[in-house]
Amino acid sequence: MVFNLKEAADLSMAVDVLIENGILVTVNPDFDIIENSAVAVKDGSIVYAGRAGGLNRQDAQKVIDATGCIVMPGLVNTHTHLPMSLFRGLADDLPLEKWLTEHIFPAEASHINPETVRAGTLLSCAEMLLSGTTCCCDGYFYEHAVAESLEKAGIRAVLGQGIVDFPTPDSPDPSKSLDTAMEFVRAWQNKSSRISPSIFCHSPYTCSSQTLTRAKQAAKEAGVLFQIHAAETQNEAGLCGLDKDASIIGYLADQGALDENTLASHCVWINAVDISILHDTGAGVSHNPESNMKLASGIAPVPALVDAGVKTGLGTDGCASNNNLDMFEAMDFAAKLHKAAAGDPAVMDAETVVRMATIEGARTLGMDRLTGSIEEGKAADIIVIDAKRPHLVPMYHPESHLVYSVCGADVAHVMVEGKMLVSDGRLVHMDLKDIIARANKISTSIRQTNQKT
Amino acid sequence: MVFNLKEAADLSMAVDVLIENGILVTVNPDFDIIENSAVAVKDGSIVYAGRAGGLNRQDAQKVIDATGCIVMPGLVNTHTHLPMSLFRGLADDLPLEKWLTEHIFPAEASHINPETVRAGTLLSCAEMLLSGTTCCCDGYFYEHAVAESLEKAGIRAVLGQGIVDFPTPDSPDPSKSLDTAMEFVRAWQNKSSRISPSIFCHSPYTCSSQTLTRAKQAAKEAGVLFQIHAAETQNEAGLCGLDKDASIIGYLADQGALDENTLASHCVWINAVDISILHDTGAGVSHNPESNMKLASGIAPVPALVDAGVKTGLGTDGCASNNNLDMFEAMDFAAKLHKAAAGDPAVMDAETVVRMATIEGARTLGMDRLTGSIEEGKAADIIVIDAKRPHLVPMYHPESHLVYSVCGADVAHVMVEGKMLVSDGRLVHMDLKDIIARANKISTSIRQTNQKT
Repeated sequence: MVFNLKEAADLSMAVDVLIENGILVTVNPDFDIIENSAVAVKDGSIVYAGRAGGLNRQDAQKVIDATGCIVMPGLVNTHTHLPMSLFRGLADDLPLEKWLTEHIFPAEASHINPETVRAGTLLSCAEMLLSGTTCCCDGYFYEHAVAESLEKAGIRAVLGQGIVDFPTPDSPDPSKSLDTAMEFVRAWQNKSSRISPSIFCHSPYTCSSQTLTRAKQAAKEAGVLFQIHAAETQNEAGLCGLDKDASIIGYLADQGALDENTLASHCVWINAVDISILHDTGAGVSHNPESNMKLASGIAPVPALVDAGVKTGLGTDGCASNNNLDMFEAMDFAAKLHKAAAGDPAVMDAETVVRMATIEGARTLGMDRLTGSIEEGKAADIIVIDAKRPHLVPMYHPESHLVYSVCGADVAHVMVEGKMLVSDGRLVHMDLKDIIARANKISTSIRQTNQKT
Repeated sequence: MVFNLKEAADLSMAVDVLIENGILVTVNPDFDIIENSAVAVKDGSIVYAGRAGGLNRQDAQKVIDATGCIVMPGLVNTHTHLPMSLFRGLADDLPLEKWLTEHIFPAEASHINPETVRAGTLLSCAEMLLSGTTCCCDGYFYEHAVAESLEKAGIRAVLGQGIVDFPTPDSPDPSKSLDTAMEFVRAWQNKSSRISPSIFCHSPYTCSSQTLTRAKQAAKEAGVLFQIHAAETQNEAGLCGLDKDASIIGYLADQGALDENTLASHCVWINAVDISILHDTGAGVSHNPESNMKLASGIAPVPALVDAGVKTGLGTDGCASNNNLDMFEAMDFAAKLHKAAAGDPAVMDAETVVRMATIEGARTLGMDRLTGSIEEGKAADIIVIDAKRPHLVPMYHPESHLVYSVCGADVAHVMVEGKMLVSDGRLVHMDLKDIIARANKISTSIRQTNQKT
């Protein structure tokens, strides 16, 4: 275990919350781990993170005893389609084309509307909070309903209204897709401290070159993130009408779609030149190991991306292709998949993977000054993991447990901006029974339609 | 969802436990799933499994309401080294040789004795029970201490005292290894309804041809399972002094070590001929996807084994190379790894993987008439999973959730031979605080020794 040698500060200020006695995995630049720690929160921000001792318990409104627990930054899920939790396990183990065209697309066409989007998003929020995710990046239809639900749930998020060149339930006229997306951006820009709107072009094969260029330009002018699925499957270049061996990353660069405010999700089918382009443009990558494995999309060259210094975060993808939103599971898969693929047990060590799930994910979203580590001045997006459980005993290296042993259910407390959202493994402010009942009701009609197809 | 059309029997007999209203995943030959089910247990056996309705609640000593839960056979972990939970996360992300020689072997040499084996095994038992495993197959040193601990914990197990051709802490004279192992077999044969002794030759590279032949012969005479690590790493033939491309499975067959009472663990580096040999001899395979990935051992050709009809179960391996004993996680990895490896999302479908973790695992241990499915006449080794949690909602196909969404922490109730061992997610009969305290105490000295290496 690495210990920060910084002495406990003698703080005598009043604080809102004091989390004491935990093993603090800061994920600061030195990856300091502090065994007997204190973290103090005031007005939604971290005002102290270091050794315990100097802080006065009496000056705290609320004290959380984290004895035997790991305290760490909340996890950042860089790629989700939250309402798709309604389709969790609807269809698995099928060829991609059959899965999409016979199950997922028909289910979306028949069942996706603002009400179901709200219900699915709230279900996903409950799942994310209970498993330690405090920030996510989402792209879907009826994104205003996603945003309202996330605002209600209290999770930090970057959200994009989906743009494609064909009619969708919420944008029947494709020529107006970008307008709809920009309306969403304007409505949510500066509206909430936690919700950041973005532009989400679905992919280079569902958006024309002109759509991509116009959408990226609009994102630039608004100063928001530009998200896109890229190089997910082997035949993507062909689907784009390019030479089948053409580089998707090169194509996106040619459209001016790549810069430090772009997040490319998946990046499975990329080569060394593509990695250089990603690095040189400053674009970020969202790696989704479980979805890529379950859909047999391929294996992204993540160790090479990390070595090249490309910003690389971790994501779960939507619940139809994973089938959950547990970022601890995503860490375990990321660490093990690339060891197997490289034939080298030393690649993707635990520290690298913990960084991907926190501060590196925040970097890909342009939010690393705000969240992704426990450092003074940052937002108090903090989770506490109960390590007094047999599968977490003994503990030699906390970061090893986070990657290889912890599961989402071990999360005891969660706060975003200093607000407690999960306490003792239970949602503080959401009615879980009602959320589950609504999702189950919608699933009844989804099941009926799906059985007919 | 598939429903059994069998009508509820009109049972008016007195039963010990009635589990009612759950979604029953029987894992019987037809893989029947019964939505509104009842399972009745009497004298440690299942006396009814089918639709609810005909059973009289008043005739049950204890009623478990499984509304919103999945009821299924307890999981069978076909490959473990239980005391190694003490080394969980001690050293990760290292080249195999360095990991073994600088960390694991020295830790074993300094710290493994009957007392630590007992403590590590009890810690593993707590973890296994809380995550739904009711039967395991173990091989290690001081196996009598493992057996005593498992007997106390109430888990069903096949256990083998490790045989190698060099001195070990519990057998300083290698020429007596087989005698020690046979003493263990004789001591535990017919002693407990739940503990079955076996012979465990560590591997073809740590046991000579003569040792293998003698040990297998002794196992045959005693009528017990013969376990061995086989074809785990690419250079194993070289380590055995064989031609580097020689077949390990062929070599074992030549030694007479393969028959229907042999369990070969890992089988990563095998080809089509080896698969035929495994099939023709009737030997079983334990697949350990997480360990193989974490140690970068390679990817076992499991879909081909299953297609060929080779008995193939699932295992976690020891906690030093996984780093937990969660069989639900092992299922998720098994399903996704082989989709990625084959480039085909249809391989290793959920039903196949659930079978591997239950009835097929039991088959590899020769215990499929006793456990591994919920059928009348079998032992009541049953688990109940609480599916009223956001990551398990909605539920279209229970078997999909078992593989892709459930984690060990979702297990609410566990019984072995009809005896409740976990109730509402808590151990009924084990003192978890004491178990954790003992393991932590031992880990303090392991940590000190390890830091010196």
